[in-house]
Amino acid sequence: MAKKKKLETTSAVLLISCPDQRGIVATLTQWVSLNNGNVIHLDQHVDFTTSTFFMRIEWELDGFAIPRDALAAAFEPMGERFDMKWQLHFSDQVERMAVLVSKQQHCLYEVLARHRAGEWNVEFPVIISNHPQAAKVAGEFGIEFHHIPAEGDDREAHEAQILEVLEKHRIDLVVLARYMRVLTPDFVGRFPNRMINIHHSFLPAFPGARPYHQAYSRGVKIIGATSHYVTADLDGGPIIDQDIMRVSHKDSIREMVRKGRNLEKGVLCNALWLHLQRKILVYENKTVILN
Amino acid sequence: MAKKKKLETTSAVLLISCPDQRGIVATLTQWVSLNNGNVIHLDQHVDFTTSTFFMRIEWELDGFAIPRDALAAAFEPMGERFDMKWQLHFSDQVERMAVLVSKQQHCLYEVLARHRAGEWNVEFPVIISNHPQAAKVAGEFGIEFHHIPAEGDDREAHEAQILEVLEKHRIDLVVLARYMRVLTPDFVGRFPNRMINIHHSFLPAFPGARPYHQAYSRGVKIIGATSHYVTADLDGGPIIDQDIMRVSHKDSIREMVRKGRNLEKGVLCNALWLHLQRKILVYENKTVILN
Amino acid sequence: MAKKKKLETTSAVLLISCPDQRGIVATLTQWVSLNNGNVIHLDQHVDFTTSTFFMRIEWELDGFAIPRDALAAAFEPMGERFDMKWQLHFSDQVERMAVLVSKQQHCLYEVLARHRAGEWNVEFPVIISNHPQAAKVAGEFGIEFHHIPAEGDDREAHEAQILEVLEKHRIDLVVLARYMRVLTPDFVGRFPNRMINIHHSFLPAFPGARPYHQAYSRGVKIIGATSHYVTADLDGGPIIDQDIMRVSHKDSIREMVRKGRNLEKGVLCNALWLHLQRKILVYENKTVILN
Amino acid sequence: MAKKKKLETTSAVLLISCPDQRGIVATLTQWVSLNNGNVIHLDQHVDFTTSTFFMRIEWELDGFAIPRDALAAAFEPMGERFDMKWQLHFSDQVERMAVLVSKQQHCLYEVLARHRAGEWNVEFPVIISNHPQAAKVAGEFGIEFHHIPAEGDDREAHEAQILEVLEKHRIDLVVLARYMRVLTPDFVGRFPNRMINIHHSFLPAFPGARPYHQAYSRGVKIIGATSHYVTADLDGGPIIDQDIMRVSHKDSIREMVRKGRNLEKGVLCNALWLHLQRKILVYENKTVILN
Repeated sequence: MAKKKKLETTSAVLLISCPDQRGIVATLTQWVSLNNGNVIHLDQHVDFTTSTFFMRIEWELDGFAIPRDALAAAFEPMGERFDMKWQLHFSDQVERMAVLVSKQQHCLYEVLARHRAGEWNVEFPVIISNHPQAAKVAGEFGIEFHHIPAEGDDREAHEAQILEVLEKHRIDLVVLARYMRVLTPDFVGRFPNRMINIHHSFLPAFPGARPYHQAYSRGVKIIGATSHYVTADLDGGPIIDQDIMRVSHKDSIREMVRKGRNLEKGVLCNALWLHLQRKILVYENKTVILN
Repeated sequence: MAKKKKLETTSAVLLISCPDQRGIVATLTQWVSLNNGNVIHLDQHVDFTTSTFFMRIEWELDGFAIPRDALAAAFEPMGERFDMKWQLHFSDQVERMAVLVSKQQHCLYEVLARHRAGEWNVEFPVIISNHPQAAKVAGEFGIEFHHIPAEGDDREAHEAQILEVLEKHRIDLVVLARYMRVLTPDFVGRFPNRMINIHHSFLPAFPGARPYHQAYSRGVKIIGATSHYVTADLDGGPIIDQDIMRVSHKDSIREMVRKGRNLEKGVLCNALWLHLQRKILVYENKTVILN
Repeated sequence: MAKKKKLETTSAVLLISCPDQRGIVATLTQWVSLNNGNVIHLDQHVDFTTSTFFMRIEWELDGFAIPRDALAAAFEPMGERFDMKWQLHFSDQVERMAVLVSKQQHCLYEVLARHRAGEWNVEFPVIISNHPQAAKVAGEFGIEFHHIPAEGDDREAHEAQILEVLEKHRIDLVVLARYMRVLTPDFVGRFPNRMINIHHSFLPAFPGARPYHQAYSRGVKIIGATSHYVTADLDGGPIIDQDIMRVSHKDSIREMVRKGRNLEKGVLCNALWLHLQRKILVYENKTVILN
Repeated sequence: MAKKKKLETTSAVLLISCPDQRGIVATLTQWVSLNNGNVIHLDQHVDFTTSTFFMRIEWELDGFAIPRDALAAAFEPMGERFDMKWQLHFSDQVERMAVLVSKQQHCLYEVLARHRAGEWNVEFPVIISNHPQAAKVAGEFGIEFHHIPAEGDDREAHEAQILEVLEKHRIDLVVLARYMRVLTPDFVGRFPNRMINIHHSFLPAFPGARPYHQAYSRGVKIIGATSHYVTADLDGGPIIDQDIMRVSHKDSIREMVRKGRNLEKGVLCNALWLHLQRKILVYENKTVILN
């Protein structure tokens, strides 16, 4: 490693998982080093219970011996040798994100505010809702808005309409920012590890509907929020981030809902940040967060 | 109210719950005031969903017009008038506490250390275990120890032996300090709101056996501990206190167990403190903690 | 007390502090009760080190025997009798709030989003900044914007311009949402306990400029944010709320700044909520938060 | 890397810091790998503001090509090549720890309980105090106790007596478990990065005497505790761990002191754990904690 990351520099990120074996770190870091790569971040992890190795390595492309277009092909033999699953990303590839939202808009506002502030390197072309309320703020922020009502029970037809919008905008990342409809496994299956939900409880406590009501009824002293990748198993996908806050007998459900909004916003946006920074590997329905 | 509580002063504590109605606080505080009582703590709460009123009021006995022995009788008409459930305690009544423990001794050590430090106003005459290991530390701290093994399946006989020891020592409060056997409803029923357990998860997540294993398997980012009154519903009793700490993919089960010990100790001892200070009212399987 | 608070009902709030003495709670609650008042919140506190009594009592005006306009006069004898400082508020009195902001807009966005969501009962007519950047979002949210540059060193002239805007809008509450200029004691003195600042450190650690740089340099493992009423003593006013998050050697200053934004927003908005709910009493440069 | 760490296996730990440069990780990991080392933990960090590289690498000695006794010499050329500061430790080297304590014994009890529970790989032969109170518990736990009173002002003579005991027991690690005397720079200088103190505040807030009194007086809403290596700069040494808890206007100083004990114990013991696991590098008066 050497020199501080300059902001304008493009970097490559490799995310790797494979059976653990001797010499992986040495081989990988040497490969980058021999090709004149300047590593700016490296984090690795070994899950000893399953003997699985994980690594995230990021290096500057500037001056790297292998041209960007040839990088994937050049790495492939290494991937095969170690039986790796790997992803190659470049820091100047901008993901395209869509937000699905229902009536509650606090998470949407938070995403809009952070996007506007330039906090994330992401395109955010479209907002979709089963309710009309978000149209106003979408307009103010200049983002296309689609009201796709979910009347009747034809979920497939409803989801087909959503999908059409997502495909038209070539969306990479779907954000469920308090979207209150359950999606079909078929729909979910189209965005593996690319659809992030915020659930307003400390999972696995209080999955499903009305978690603050459940929390109030159980008399817990702490409430939470959980962001996770969406899988076919409702509220059962890989957890990315969680946070909590204390409550007491003084907190009505209404007050829990009010307090919880801040949790939800923070936990959702932290998950988006980690995803967009390519810091997350999913493994056995869990996340490994590499810095 | 007036004057700071002197440590040597004996005080009376009234814990009250009743249907909410106008004038309760006025009537109660006036009753204390007219009898020349010096209120040193007052906290009240109204649960608007069930229209229930809760109050804890503590006043100095020194100079109080009604003699201590006549206090309960004197208060009774008030209790009837407002349809109250009420408890009267005196700060110089010392509870008698027993600890039940299995192999893991960190919670027992914590209780011993705090008791030794004089942190609590409690008698602690006996430790009971289904394993022999705690005999040594019990001896060092000069506390009677009973090893009551739980071999075979005759739970009633086993519990009868425990009960005999508890009764011999006139135990008021039973502390399950990582006691790993499930107790029968009959046994539990003898100590209503007088038996406190520490469960090593953030309930209602991960009830039952091996919660750290469950937490590891689910991939949560936060682990917790919960102290609660024991009811016939396993891990389902009224929650007194909870606390949490962050974990990551780097934490093995073994590491979670290690980190969790500190949580468990703190959460258990905080519950004991609140109980011994007479700060807890139980209502609809929840606790109201009044200061 | 009786019956659940209906949302549409107007209530009266009394905030009281006075020398502690016997019978205050009884007298006050009886006064409300005898006038047919339905108490919906009551919280009190005694500071034994200074023998000072604090109370917040809120009751429904509907059906109250004393007309709203006559309430203050009716209460005055009570206030004199107990040598009270007291404030009387009505829940339908809407405060008028202005935000002062510099370049960083995350706190401003948060205030705007919560205001838009109807979370607070407040008028928000104007935003003032020493920089032009916030003009855009102010326009989108339909709020008057004043760019009042602070060039040169004539602070009095600069503040006079600000004051003129605040007075024109009859502002009750001034919010410094990352406003990076130090205000004169004269200016501050015009808004006693009515000007709230967010400081991006865990005060009293790291007052003054660049707290994240100070935190990084000192190598702390936790960073924080503090909301407080502004006094002539820079960063020394009564603390309303604080929150923290963990950092490590991996966090650069840049990363601390990024993470801290979420803290700052939450801590500022919690202070505003408490202030607008009339839950704060200031006493000896500290806050007593009554629920 | 390969295979899970067996508990009985001895491992080597290298702690390294040096100017950042290309190829360090590759070179180091390859050196271990080529010598048939099985890496079980590896963590590294680059401080870009000073271009400094840090690494902790732990591998099993079993089967390693270089004999244990020859390891340091074998590594030396690598150290010189990269201009490294490095330490070599073996997991079966047991540190020798002494505790210095004054009147408050909660931290001492915690250390004793964890030591007794076998949580740490450490020898704990001696307790020293300027007060006689800890003699009893030292006796119960079978640990040598020295009462070395600090009457008069001859600090050098007092410290000379302490030093004599520490040297007699060949102490590696000195723990100040609420030891309330300030030590001379000369004494401190004998244990660089080998003397750990617990300070009962969230440093750098409230250094020096009576931090809970300071916290109460300032009206903070959160209190904390800080463990750090002791340097000649009072309460100014490298911070190892910090933790916090919420307080309110209801908490008297006495209550803060009570609540804070749990914080102090946890934060001190976490620092000892990290130190004994050889996870801490000190750099520019800060700690880098490598896992």
